[in-house]
Amino acid sequence: MAIVVQKYGGSSVGTIGKIKNVARRVAKRREAGDQVVVVVSAMGKTTNMLVGMAKEISENPPTREMDMLMSTGEQISISLLSIALKELGFDSISMTGFQAGILTGGRHTNARITDIEISNVKEELDKGKIVVVAGFQGVNEKGNITTLGRGGSDTTAVALAAKLSCNCEIYTDVEGIYTVDPRLYAEAKKLEAISYEEMMEMASLGAGVMQTRSVEIGQKFGVPIYVALSTEERPGTYIKEHDASMEEKVITGLSVSDDDIMITINGIPYSTKVVSVLFEKLAERDVNIDMISQTAPHDGFINISFTADKGDLNSIREVISDFENENGGVRSEIDEEITKLSVVGNGMRTHSGVAAKMFKILAENEIEFKQVTTSEIRISYTINPKDKIKAVHAIAKVFDL
Amino acid sequence: MAIVVQKYGGSSVGTIGKIKNVARRVAKRREAGDQVVVVVSAMGKTTNMLVGMAKEISENPPTREMDMLMSTGEQISISLLSIALKELGFDSISMTGFQAGILTGGRHTNARITDIEISNVKEELDKGKIVVVAGFQGVNEKGNITTLGRGGSDTTAVALAAKLSCNCEIYTDVEGIYTVDPRLYAEAKKLEAISYEEMMEMASLGAGVMQTRSVEIGQKFGVPIYVALSTEERPGTYIKEHDASMEEKVITGLSVSDDDIMITINGIPYSTKVVSVLFEKLAERDVNIDMISQTAPHDGFINISFTADKGDLNSIREVISDFENENGGVRSEIDEEITKLSVVGNGMRTHSGVAAKMFKILAENEIEFKQVTTSEIRISYTINPKDKIKAVHAIAKVFDL
Repeated sequence: MAIVVQKYGGSSVGTIGKIKNVARRVAKRREAGDQVVVVVSAMGKTTNMLVGMAKEISENPPTREMDMLMSTGEQISISLLSIALKELGFDSISMTGFQAGILTGGRHTNARITDIEISNVKEELDKGKIVVVAGFQGVNEKGNITTLGRGGSDTTAVALAAKLSCNCEIYTDVEGIYTVDPRLYAEAKKLEAISYEEMMEMASLGAGVMQTRSVEIGQKFGVPIYVALSTEERPGTYIKEHDASMEEKVITGLSVSDDDIMITINGIPYSTKVVSVLFEKLAERDVNIDMISQTAPHDGFINISFTADKGDLNSIREVISDFENENGGVRSEIDEEITKLSVVGNGMRTHSGVAAKMFKILAENEIEFKQVTTSEIRISYTINPKDKIKAVHAIAKVFDL
Repeated sequence: MAIVVQKYGGSSVGTIGKIKNVARRVAKRREAGDQVVVVVSAMGKTTNMLVGMAKEISENPPTREMDMLMSTGEQISISLLSIALKELGFDSISMTGFQAGILTGGRHTNARITDIEISNVKEELDKGKIVVVAGFQGVNEKGNITTLGRGGSDTTAVALAAKLSCNCEIYTDVEGIYTVDPRLYAEAKKLEAISYEEMMEMASLGAGVMQTRSVEIGQKFGVPIYVALSTEERPGTYIKEHDASMEEKVITGLSVSDDDIMITINGIPYSTKVVSVLFEKLAERDVNIDMISQTAPHDGFINISFTADKGDLNSIREVISDFENENGGVRSEIDEEITKLSVVGNGMRTHSGVAAKMFKILAENEIEFKQVTTSEIRISYTINPKDKIKAVHAIAKVFDL
């Protein structure tokens, strides 16, 4: 008898009918002899509805109260799923993040799991119960309810699996991890397996299926993660340590994101101190910087470009405005109309020439790019959104994605 | 600077606009210099909606999970009210029942407050914050979320006021306590004050404004309670210890309830033991018995009638069926079509003849009654619902209600 953590996302529990369906799936697994912990998100659009109510009251509601508000969404799902399980004759108990011992640090609405006091969950599993845990939420050292940010339920599930030393299964509305988003490229292939590292790059680049943080925890604690469809039994994708069994391709996937903005700052006095102050101020406001490129100094000045999440636009504007005031001659520009395109692959470690191939594809298809950055297993470009589909198809074909 | 506990019911926070209105009222009180604890119920029909969702899954959902589910309703209201207060520039913090230290015992969906660990609330008040507490909910010794049953938010408010040794103000959609329900008798008078004891009788008899348990706690700890309209500034009703300042009338009010059923059991062997077993079985199932009347034994048998809440019908049926099986010759009858009519007044302690007057009024108006019971400060009758309005008008006129 093994323990397994299963996670069902918001679209998989969006209606009473879907909750009953999840209950049947969970019950089947329990019947097969496994001990099951189920992590669920809020039903469908509940979180958006709650946020909408708060926004009717305040444009900038306090984050502690937003966490108090949003956490009710998962509390509703867990109680309904537990009721559905009991109706099927299975003993179950629902637990809020607090009751399940999910301890968090960091900021409200974007907290991080620091530890899990697993004793409550274990005790109920030992009694033979199915334990239904609210995803996306925890409690901080002051006893305040916190939430983990977008996709946080994945992190709850993987962290619980890490603590219980068991497998984690993420059930969602897609069949698994694809080489390219199938909505952009219909011929995209479903991957049988992907390494943690590749998945982290893909996730942070907007692949959308998993929260980066959850994959990071998976890698750190060696939790095998399986991503599959919540409605039917079809083979999904394993996320695990890179091993010989994985298909050896240079490029595993192509990620595309329209959620970024590109900031370019020209005429910065050439001094590491000046630049480091800029990025410190951005970090203080929790702005997550992705692609950074800096050109070599010229006449004692440098130019820097970086991309960041669209949601951080206001914070970035404030930091940059201060930065301009403190450094005469600095001029900045924010480009809100960009598409970020990244190829990711473990094979890039050993295969050279990927960059050359990419430049050639873009040139042949007359696709201009504004910025390029590379890491050991990825190359990213920012391009004009109008060239997106053309670029995706060209790259996918060349690399057989 | 005094502390005050204010409570706003579900209809007073039924929309975002109403929540903003409550925030303005609370802010005004804080601005006047008082420290304010606000207790709120779930928005409008939220609780009914949540119960409806559960009933779609199970006809008889487990009560622990129902508490988990229903408690989200108040959690939504407290966060929204706290956001609204901050938007007005007032520092505030919302607290779930658990965070506010509301400890409960007893059964899920009908728990009782056993104590309040008030330190969290006090600490935040001392920081100058308005503390917004979720009504209707608490936590039991196992850390499970519990709810206090219908009207439980009143109890939360009065219990907090008891612990903080301060006044309690209940804001609702009626102007105060009336001699008779104004929907039944338009000329009903609003009372300036009513004693705890009278209010308890009225509440338990279906006056509907306050939960009986909350008045009981108010009396036990000497908490002055003020009931008034939540939308406008109009004089309400004080509930307090009976004192000389209260208008000395024989009858303070007339309560009418259509929520009861009357059970009559004939042919019970005359033995106190047999009867006590019956009532023990009913108590085990949490059935609240109100009017009990028993006739003198005849030929070694007795007949008993009692009233109970309509909601307990199924439990009662089961108990009575067992009782009939165990005691041959017993025949029972359940009358679901009754109206309970009660006159209540502290003056009845010293004025005789109230019963005589009542019998006369009913006789003159040709109103048949099925059962009569009396206590020190009340007389109750069960009558046919068709005679309700006629009876109310006749009694109200004679006693000048």
